[in-house]
Amino acid sequence: MENKNQSVGIVRTEFYTIDEKIQFECGVNFGPITVAYETYGQLNETKDNAILIVHALTGDAHAAGYHSESDKKPGWWDTMIGPDKAFDTNKYYVICSNILGGCSGTTGPSSINPETNEPYGTSFPVFTIEDTVKVQKKLIDFLGVKGIYTVAGGSMGGMQAMQFVISFPSMVKSAVLIATTSRLSPQAIAFNAVGRNSIISDPNWNNGNYYNKENKPDRGLSNARMIGHITYLCEEAMYNKFGRRLQNKNHYDFNFDIDFQVESYLQHQGQIFVDRFDANSYLYITKAVDYFDLEEKYGSLQNAFKNSNAKYLIISFDSDWLFPSSQSKEIVNTLMQLGKDVSYCEIKSPCGHDAFLLEYDVQSKIIKSFLNEHIEGNYYE
Amino acid sequence: MENKNQSVGIVRTEFYTIDEKIQFECGVNFGPITVAYETYGQLNETKDNAILIVHALTGDAHAAGYHSESDKKPGWWDTMIGPDKAFDTNKYYVICSNILGGCSGTTGPSSINPETNEPYGTSFPVFTIEDTVKVQKKLIDFLGVKGIYTVAGGSMGGMQAMQFVISFPSMVKSAVLIATTSRLSPQAIAFNAVGRNSIISDPNWNNGNYYNKENKPDRGLSNARMIGHITYLCEEAMYNKFGRRLQNKNHYDFNFDIDFQVESYLQHQGQIFVDRFDANSYLYITKAVDYFDLEEKYGSLQNAFKNSNAKYLIISFDSDWLFPSSQSKEIVNTLMQLGKDVSYCEIKSPCGHDAFLLEYDVQSKIIKSFLNEHIEGNYYE
Repeated sequence: MENKNQSVGIVRTEFYTIDEKIQFECGVNFGPITVAYETYGQLNETKDNAILIVHALTGDAHAAGYHSESDKKPGWWDTMIGPDKAFDTNKYYVICSNILGGCSGTTGPSSINPETNEPYGTSFPVFTIEDTVKVQKKLIDFLGVKGIYTVAGGSMGGMQAMQFVISFPSMVKSAVLIATTSRLSPQAIAFNAVGRNSIISDPNWNNGNYYNKENKPDRGLSNARMIGHITYLCEEAMYNKFGRRLQNKNHYDFNFDIDFQVESYLQHQGQIFVDRFDANSYLYITKAVDYFDLEEKYGSLQNAFKNSNAKYLIISFDSDWLFPSSQSKEIVNTLMQLGKDVSYCEIKSPCGHDAFLLEYDVQSKIIKSFLNEHIEGNYYE
Repeated sequence: MENKNQSVGIVRTEFYTIDEKIQFECGVNFGPITVAYETYGQLNETKDNAILIVHALTGDAHAAGYHSESDKKPGWWDTMIGPDKAFDTNKYYVICSNILGGCSGTTGPSSINPETNEPYGTSFPVFTIEDTVKVQKKLIDFLGVKGIYTVAGGSMGGMQAMQFVISFPSMVKSAVLIATTSRLSPQAIAFNAVGRNSIISDPNWNNGNYYNKENKPDRGLSNARMIGHITYLCEEAMYNKFGRRLQNKNHYDFNFDIDFQVESYLQHQGQIFVDRFDANSYLYITKAVDYFDLEEKYGSLQNAFKNSNAKYLIISFDSDWLFPSSQSKEIVNTLMQLGKDVSYCEIKSPCGHDAFLLEYDVQSKIIKSFLNEHIEGNYYE
């Protein structure tokens, strides 16, 4: 464990079960939903110093700190959340929850349906980003939060952050949107579709009923993850990390085993992923991402944001080809046309889409300055 | 069938079986090899007006013309090969053969091993681009060709064209290298690796022994093709072709069927592919492509090309992100440093890597000018 002065220390994932059913966009009235969440820092007396962190495709509630004294791996955004860090737990009450439909504690397709005592599987309703945000709002209310100082996330997290601002405009002071988009490009949809196809074509997927089976759709899920990983990196990152170097050999093997380091890396990423992620959750969450389309939903991007009074910080990365800077700039331009308060920064990085998890140093500086000076300075205007 | 004045007309795939065994790079001495090929136009008296066309990943010997009067679909590069076309059959003797390891007539993993009377499957040796070129040379010799006026191909065809020039420098007058590279980027290797993984993870692949089985690894092969297709298009092509339009519906289905046109297109491409291609051939040919690395093989790109006296025409497409222009420029720069005769053109196109099959108009003009003026004008120097 790192120095406790820079860490939120030992944390615990908590669970909250929403009593009433929630109306999903697909028309289904769904419940009960249990939400797995963690909080760091203290809620102030006016209950308006909350920071809502929203995770990307395969994240979870454990965003910062450690789960035990012997725990070696901190939360997924520990570099950004903690005392004096970008999201400063000395000043703010930071909340992160596992997304609806996930497989790390929040109700999803792998959860037991209390009406059948069997896992939901594909009887789980297909949900949208707006549905996930409704669930987060219930958690916020339960925690007694009255005002969100900022809602922040990268990639799919940025989609949820935008949707939160749009759905609950009076509650949100600011939003930090990183490496995100108001709607996926057809190419990004295509990659998700091939990933899902890979899972669905795995005979062990068995129409989503595999939880009680010996064999799970691990090969399909692993392949989907490999496809995803190619899109999270970029050409430059791949040259830097692997080039055309061979894996533990000097010559080609002339068989269909792994020859290149990049193959080995992807296979490894695929293999470790199946131990921590559920194939059905992958189907549902990628579908929610594909469906997210603020232009289509609200008639235009301007319409989507017109009622929000939040201040925006938008960050993109020049080597991100999955959610390229041009998509961030579209949001920035719309917000500027609406006369909203928006700061934008394109960070030079060789890390591709993954940069939102890796480039914490430069992101921290920008976010700190935004939160501590730009927003805080204007807080009691 | 189009106007016969612009077509090579009715053509027939022929077969030639190489008697002796061929030494492969992997060390195996392999034979017999049957080569499927087509020819268009007449070999001249000096037997040096041959144009060797080399196909891309999933092509075949049928590059031009029709197989019958009722045939509606011409050969894969019919737009480029024929009377007065880029590769002018009034003047040149055009040869195209199916690649070693393929599944359209040339000996490959789906062929019967005469020693066992069973299909080779994965007992077929892993071959390289150099091995495929050795096979093509045997065919050329059999046809009585003494001089290659030009060797031309796009994508993997360009790799074979380069290797042919390098392996048989005294025989080749010129080379037309389109949308190709002297070695795949790690990202391109990654896409091939995931495609192969998709096939190998299909239980019906069965270690390559599926030819006598009822179920073939169609789902794995289809998925591999879908991944490939994403890389053959580009962001702009996908926006132009599909955008985020839904397939035969106005609203999301909220299930895991096809929602978007781009999904429908990819699924269709995957499905029709399995009817014409063999999964093992896909494994072998993508491996040959991954292994192709002129820098590594010859110590440097300069060394690779230093003995060639061919004149080069190199064409790339600005929207090709699989084999980007930067890779073509690397070859151009090397050839210029060596003092070789090289022409280069980057064509503006919204078609991505597929442009070498689609942008025939502009390519034809450039290739015609190169072949008829630049090369022919210098032919008897």
